[in-house]
Amino acid sequence: MLGHGVTFILGGARSGKSSFAEGLIEASGLEAVYLATGKAWDDEMSARIGLHKARRGSAWTTIEEPLDLVGLLQSESAGNRAVLVDCLTLWLTNLMMAERDIEAETAELVAVLPRLKGPLVFVSNEVGLGIVPENRMAREFRDHAGRLHQAVAGAAATVYFVAAGLPLKMKG
Amino acid sequence: MLGHGVTFILGGARSGKSSFAEGLIEASGLEAVYLATGKAWDDEMSARIGLHKARRGSAWTTIEEPLDLVGLLQSESAGNRAVLVDCLTLWLTNLMMAERDIEAETAELVAVLPRLKGPLVFVSNEVGLGIVPENRMAREFRDHAGRLHQAVAGAAATVYFVAAGLPLKMKG
Amino acid sequence: MLGHGVTFILGGARSGKSSFAEGLIEASGLEAVYLATGKAWDDEMSARIGLHKARRGSAWTTIEEPLDLVGLLQSESAGNRAVLVDCLTLWLTNLMMAERDIEAETAELVAVLPRLKGPLVFVSNEVGLGIVPENRMAREFRDHAGRLHQAVAGAAATVYFVAAGLPLKMKG
Repeated sequence: MLGHGVTFILGGARSGKSSFAEGLIEASGLEAVYLATGKAWDDEMSARIGLHKARRGSAWTTIEEPLDLVGLLQSESAGNRAVLVDCLTLWLTNLMMAERDIEAETAELVAVLPRLKGPLVFVSNEVGLGIVPENRMAREFRDHAGRLHQAVAGAAATVYFVAAGLPLKMKG
Repeated sequence: MLGHGVTFILGGARSGKSSFAEGLIEASGLEAVYLATGKAWDDEMSARIGLHKARRGSAWTTIEEPLDLVGLLQSESAGNRAVLVDCLTLWLTNLMMAERDIEAETAELVAVLPRLKGPLVFVSNEVGLGIVPENRMAREFRDHAGRLHQAVAGAAATVYFVAAGLPLKMKG
Repeated sequence: MLGHGVTFILGGARSGKSSFAEGLIEASGLEAVYLATGKAWDDEMSARIGLHKARRGSAWTTIEEPLDLVGLLQSESAGNRAVLVDCLTLWLTNLMMAERDIEAETAELVAVLPRLKGPLVFVSNEVGLGIVPENRMAREFRDHAGRLHQAVAGAAATVYFVAAGLPLKMKG
């Protein structure tokens, strides 16, 4: 069941985390808003975005925003709406590409969460459980993602880890 | 304890998932069949297969089959036998090498499971919790593996996630 | 709460595993000893070590030892002290660089654990949940890490898996 505050869903690639998040929101009966942080950098990414859209169907309002997550959450969240942010690691990728200050952006996001109305569901990819990447930028990304996940999990009322389509409650 | 239907055991490299699976089957008292999907592509792989075989000992019947998992399961599963499939990611590797249609193979496997007799234990490697691989084929493999795991977990009565030799029940 | 024996904390990069470990020890009221296995091979590593030290503050005694973990544990562990070893994967890296016999070192560590006095907390990185690394040394590292984690988890009274700053009890 979807709680009133923040729900954070963390999982691996193709773990079923987005479907699980969508199911939570659809079962709530609230107006469903999909806040897509992914930008179609290439055909592979376009195809992925298209598949996600087709699966959600027409009941959802989709908004695409690669960078200004905080602003969109402030304008879109409302008591009768549930907003799904999919996903935090893509937002982080966009912030890094745009050379933004990641710590400041993370702090701003976490600060705004308690003031928002209506359920919010954040989906993100756990990326820190493999071998240390040889590429320095990948290591930085991994570090930023880990810190962002800790911050969002700290602010969330409910946290799930999803593997093979199965949710495991870590908090709440 | 080993259930009558499908048990799915997911874990990382050297997580103890195979030992845990073998223990479940050995404790059942049923005739134990080991269905090895691994092909010895090189010496490293040969050594791994040899180690696994030595550990299992002579009580097991070992069958090696890189591709026709569905056919073997149909001929080998029986009420007085427990079959261990080790592992799904190696089967997936073989299917990709042989340029098979992965979605069709996954669908066929999941469709046949409810019709099989006797306990079946599937072991597989979770590979989706690291950084996005730079190599396109590795990304495709990761996506296929995630979807296969969701499908098998959906069809399974019991699912465990194994880390550091410790099982965590995710379903059942 | 910190138990008398061995506590093992496994998690991903930037998962909050060290903070969780430090919190367990600080809450125990015992004298806190930090056994750092990390060697500053480069500036990136130096910066990490500096950050960890600043966070812990002056209540901790810090000892740096890249290789002789077993010797240090024997001399430092005592009933009124809690020792934090951070982390096992860095120790493993150092052993591999020094071309030590990893199986023998693992066996020696596990053999000495039951004879030590006072709580011991081991922190380590799970590295086996990503795609198989292309680099052979990385594959060997991953295999050694998995076996070391199984051995330490087997000897531990309590095991946690930490993700996004949240501990999940796997044993104890």
